[in-house]
Amino acid sequence: MQQITLKNYCVGAPKLDDFELNVTARPTPKEGQFIVRHIYNSVDPGTRSRLSGGDSYAAALPLGTPIDGFSVGCVEDSRNADFPDGTKVYCAGGWRTHTVQNGRGFIGKIPQNIDLPLSLWIGILGVPGLTAWFGLKSVANFRPGDHVLITSAGGPVGATAGQLARLWGASKIVGVAGSEEKGRWLTEQAGFDHFINYKTTPDLDAAIQQALPDGVDILFDNVGNDMINRVLPMMRMQGRICVSGQVADYNSEPDDRPGIVNTLPFITHRVRMQGLVVFDFMREFDAALRDMAAFIAEGRLKYLEEKFDGIEQMPEAFGGLFRGENMGRRVVKVGEEV
Amino acid sequence: MQQITLKNYCVGAPKLDDFELNVTARPTPKEGQFIVRHIYNSVDPGTRSRLSGGDSYAAALPLGTPIDGFSVGCVEDSRNADFPDGTKVYCAGGWRTHTVQNGRGFIGKIPQNIDLPLSLWIGILGVPGLTAWFGLKSVANFRPGDHVLITSAGGPVGATAGQLARLWGASKIVGVAGSEEKGRWLTEQAGFDHFINYKTTPDLDAAIQQALPDGVDILFDNVGNDMINRVLPMMRMQGRICVSGQVADYNSEPDDRPGIVNTLPFITHRVRMQGLVVFDFMREFDAALRDMAAFIAEGRLKYLEEKFDGIEQMPEAFGGLFRGENMGRRVVKVGEEV
Repeated sequence: MQQITLKNYCVGAPKLDDFELNVTARPTPKEGQFIVRHIYNSVDPGTRSRLSGGDSYAAALPLGTPIDGFSVGCVEDSRNADFPDGTKVYCAGGWRTHTVQNGRGFIGKIPQNIDLPLSLWIGILGVPGLTAWFGLKSVANFRPGDHVLITSAGGPVGATAGQLARLWGASKIVGVAGSEEKGRWLTEQAGFDHFINYKTTPDLDAAIQQALPDGVDILFDNVGNDMINRVLPMMRMQGRICVSGQVADYNSEPDDRPGIVNTLPFITHRVRMQGLVVFDFMREFDAALRDMAAFIAEGRLKYLEEKFDGIEQMPEAFGGLFRGENMGRRVVKVGEEV
Repeated sequence: MQQITLKNYCVGAPKLDDFELNVTARPTPKEGQFIVRHIYNSVDPGTRSRLSGGDSYAAALPLGTPIDGFSVGCVEDSRNADFPDGTKVYCAGGWRTHTVQNGRGFIGKIPQNIDLPLSLWIGILGVPGLTAWFGLKSVANFRPGDHVLITSAGGPVGATAGQLARLWGASKIVGVAGSEEKGRWLTEQAGFDHFINYKTTPDLDAAIQQALPDGVDILFDNVGNDMINRVLPMMRMQGRICVSGQVADYNSEPDDRPGIVNTLPFITHRVRMQGLVVFDFMREFDAALRDMAAFIAEGRLKYLEEKFDGIEQMPEAFGGLFRGENMGRRVVKVGEEV
């Protein structure tokens, strides 16, 4: 089996030689265990926060360990009656070709009655889609009629959040992203009302105000401090900021980060800001996945995917996330579909 | 009647000559109205945010208008059957000796069966006490066992919040304030476990960590960005920051303010930060006041008060709030008790 491990702690943006490909012996499952042969692995921007070493507050990944991520795959060599050979699963797999699992933790069987591409289970039906769902519903307390601003709207979390807001009855949905191609997809395919290109818009604050003249009920943010600071003065009464991702801040030390200074609206406008880790909502995943799969099957919820081929492509696929290169969810094919 | 109006917009800390004392004719109530003859007026740090002019987001107070505040007083010249002459009330009165009221908005009768000093109804039984109550209970979602850090703990909001946390079953209560005298009162009289003097402690972060080695469930903050930024890395899982006041930031422009940069715990620790304006909870005031009055009468909830004498003292009493001079709630006597 192959795996990619952390060779050097990342300083700033992740570099290719921060990672290393190893070949190890295929493990033998013990009683109750089984092997998942990975078919697709994900690269996730949130992983970056664990690659700096030290242990400021989150558990840092030690050097030499495989990188975290999500995988879809197929059960082999099973010694667990609940997961017989051939079962298709999604799981916390990581940057490897095989993992030993015991059926506990984050692992689920892919429902046989849902006929959608396998890779979606680490995409719109995986952590990104679920983050959009629970971020909007349970953290931002979405209400029909809300005016919603979504950053990194071209990414799989943002694009899904905007479409769910539309399906659930938002009054206005505006997305911020970094390419015209993403923007066209958002407005023409995904039902966003407006798209703002942060790379080419000379005055981003003015553009947001123009797109959302009545202010913002929900800021669904995947970027970090700079965006939150900009939008705080535009928040409406009882506005909610869902801190879904902080991709612009993961690579920096606190002192080099933009600070949030526009804080008076917290009191004057009763703003609430809250972060989420989607696994806190695990008990509600099944119901959300059933509903999302139905939306996808009906063509009402769309997604973009970029496929890479080969486990050795994972560092490159990951690094590009921080250069805004991705057009949708990045998945890496590391094994054959059955 | 006399009143104090805004003469100049405040720049930085409020100065005495930003205010002006006027004498005006006593108004004649119309049908449904009555006069409240003020006995005590409050000075409130939150008022500062409305004295800078402009209208960034909150309604700025125009020059020449009387300053906002709370008052206890006695009804006179009543043409409203619900508020006969002699009724004692607390109300949104302001820096004046008399106001015309119509019984709507923020006004309440002081219960005749509660025999506590009149001035408490603009103190621990007024906005400061209610802010502590609803900030802790409804915004910070206090839970028994919580480890609570309170800033401006010597002020009327902070001192009350700490005592309520104790009465409701907190595991640990630590207060930050600026004088040894306040600190002694907090630990010896008000049941705080520890007091940290931010003016004399060389390493404030280390002092907080030492006082709260297991971290912070609730930061009840009355100071602003600098404190929030310090404490964010110490927040426990699902920690809550109640933005109750921002006294260090009201006087500054955003660009001159400390920025909140330690934002990654919002996600890693699912931190929630939320501001409050106590009037959002008006429908629950009566029940809270009844419970707080009982705690006070039983000697289980203590308060400190500083009385000033004469309406002309109000600018001085107000300005001192921003120099940390106050030892408890500042009330200004502007009329005789009956």
